[in-house]
Amino acid sequence: MEIEEIKPESLNPDDFIRQKVDDVSSAVGSGLAVNALSGGVDSSAVTLLGHRALGERLKTYFIENGLMREGEPERVASLFKGMGIPVEIVDSKKEFFGALKGLTDPEEKREVITQTFYRAVLARLVRESGAKFLLHGTIYTDVEETVAGIKRQHNILEQLGIDTEKEFGYKVLEPLVQLRKPGVRMVAKALGLPEEVYKRMPFPGPALATRVIGEVTPEKIELVRKATTIVEHELADTEAFLYFAVLHENKVPGMRSGKRDYGWQIEVRCWDSKDATTGSPTRLPWETLDKLAERITSEVPGVVNVTYNITNKPPSTMEVV
Amino acid sequence: MEIEEIKPESLNPDDFIRQKVDDVSSAVGSGLAVNALSGGVDSSAVTLLGHRALGERLKTYFIENGLMREGEPERVASLFKGMGIPVEIVDSKKEFFGALKGLTDPEEKREVITQTFYRAVLARLVRESGAKFLLHGTIYTDVEETVAGIKRQHNILEQLGIDTEKEFGYKVLEPLVQLRKPGVRMVAKALGLPEEVYKRMPFPGPALATRVIGEVTPEKIELVRKATTIVEHELADTEAFLYFAVLHENKVPGMRSGKRDYGWQIEVRCWDSKDATTGSPTRLPWETLDKLAERITSEVPGVVNVTYNITNKPPSTMEVV
Repeated sequence: MEIEEIKPESLNPDDFIRQKVDDVSSAVGSGLAVNALSGGVDSSAVTLLGHRALGERLKTYFIENGLMREGEPERVASLFKGMGIPVEIVDSKKEFFGALKGLTDPEEKREVITQTFYRAVLARLVRESGAKFLLHGTIYTDVEETVAGIKRQHNILEQLGIDTEKEFGYKVLEPLVQLRKPGVRMVAKALGLPEEVYKRMPFPGPALATRVIGEVTPEKIELVRKATTIVEHELADTEAFLYFAVLHENKVPGMRSGKRDYGWQIEVRCWDSKDATTGSPTRLPWETLDKLAERITSEVPGVVNVTYNITNKPPSTMEVV
Repeated sequence: MEIEEIKPESLNPDDFIRQKVDDVSSAVGSGLAVNALSGGVDSSAVTLLGHRALGERLKTYFIENGLMREGEPERVASLFKGMGIPVEIVDSKKEFFGALKGLTDPEEKREVITQTFYRAVLARLVRESGAKFLLHGTIYTDVEETVAGIKRQHNILEQLGIDTEKEFGYKVLEPLVQLRKPGVRMVAKALGLPEEVYKRMPFPGPALATRVIGEVTPEKIELVRKATTIVEHELADTEAFLYFAVLHENKVPGMRSGKRDYGWQIEVRCWDSKDATTGSPTRLPWETLDKLAERITSEVPGVVNVTYNITNKPPSTMEVV
């Protein structure tokens, strides 16, 4: 890997920002660029960096793939509007659910989301905008994991030898690629992003689709979205690195009003970790686990059972895809 | 329901035993009877009761369906041999796995095990032995749950209007049907059964097949059998009512030697309960949960993730079928 990592201890966020703003300015020249904002710390930092470098010549989109958390598109757009950066929400729900229909293999699901994101939606937005550049929040860990064959990140293209200019019609700029998450958080803070962004938990690119085992449908996304809202609310005060809900594919037996009733099973995972390379399940108080199970089974329609992950990473992974 | 329940506080085990020995003697007369022993407290108590009533005119079989726990057939046969009761182990593995092939629906799996047990294997043994009576360890809760439509117990026939004499060629005697589990344990103790039997956890009739979600194969039974051995060993000192391992149908991602590797997921359930009608997950120490996950992922081939049930019954059930 030829990218030179910048570690937190040798990172000066203000110098880094100045350097990257210059780099983006020179690369794009007088042209136009676009970027896709998800509200995560990586894409938020890129949006602010790009805006400093290009001003109105950077067009920022929020791609509403139907797989985001409750109220997320509106919350993110409103946050950036408050910082003077207009964000256009692009409704692409039909394209994503159409592409995901019938797929159960995790790698295929991930691949179809990547293709829909880059080849269908983003490429069309770039064409329509006349931009030749895409600013992208790839970080060092994404590249590393993909090259190592651990996981195919959805945003790694050039490192895999994919010529984005030829295949998708745009050139990708990755100003954060020398940083890991802690470095990105330092830069995000220095850029003036609020704590809710620079301390935000990592959220996977394929979003809630990664939290549904088996076929992804609008109905299943709605179930796991409700469970996710509960988990994020109940665990907000923990110091955990990452927490989320997973909807299992198989139904399991349960009881409602004294009668047998098959229903869904939700798995909760909550991780202690420094940088996602290893992790251990957070030792949550039993009262919290009890409350999670009680709320999820009573508030999410059709859920009869909740489990909690007790395995370290490795041998588990953090997410289920 | 016309059966009159005998509660533990009004149960005199010695009187009960005398009464039931008399009942079985009069019913069977000078004929022959058979019974199937699984090693659980119910069938063990019936075996001793029947032996007192009939002596050598009771023939006791252990039906090895391939779904039992590690070393169970040999352990049970040897225990009863030590009490002067010969037990014949009947190898029926092929019949059960053949019947289960391709089935994924829990009710169908349960039904096929019932049919194979009663119609194929037991009926054949009765015919070959010339017996007209089957002694059976049905208890009050089995009848109650089946009538209420909560669960189809595998041993309820007459209560559902099935004429066993006509359909299977034998008459069923159920000497324990007025008792719930605590009463059966009192009777088992009074019969002289060792503590490992009269305090034994309930184990479902369809055995490890109920701990595999989806299709039951010899390979999957072997995985859940290994996990069960670990769970029973690690949780033996808890005061829990019931604990076991479940093999999920879907594979989940994991990591081995730094590489991504899909593998199996095991769910551990451990219940605090008085009589199985309601229950709550035992609040196990985190050290124990950690050890369970560590042992299962390192000792059971292909398992990359372990979860722990955190849901009460209801809305969950105790078992997964």
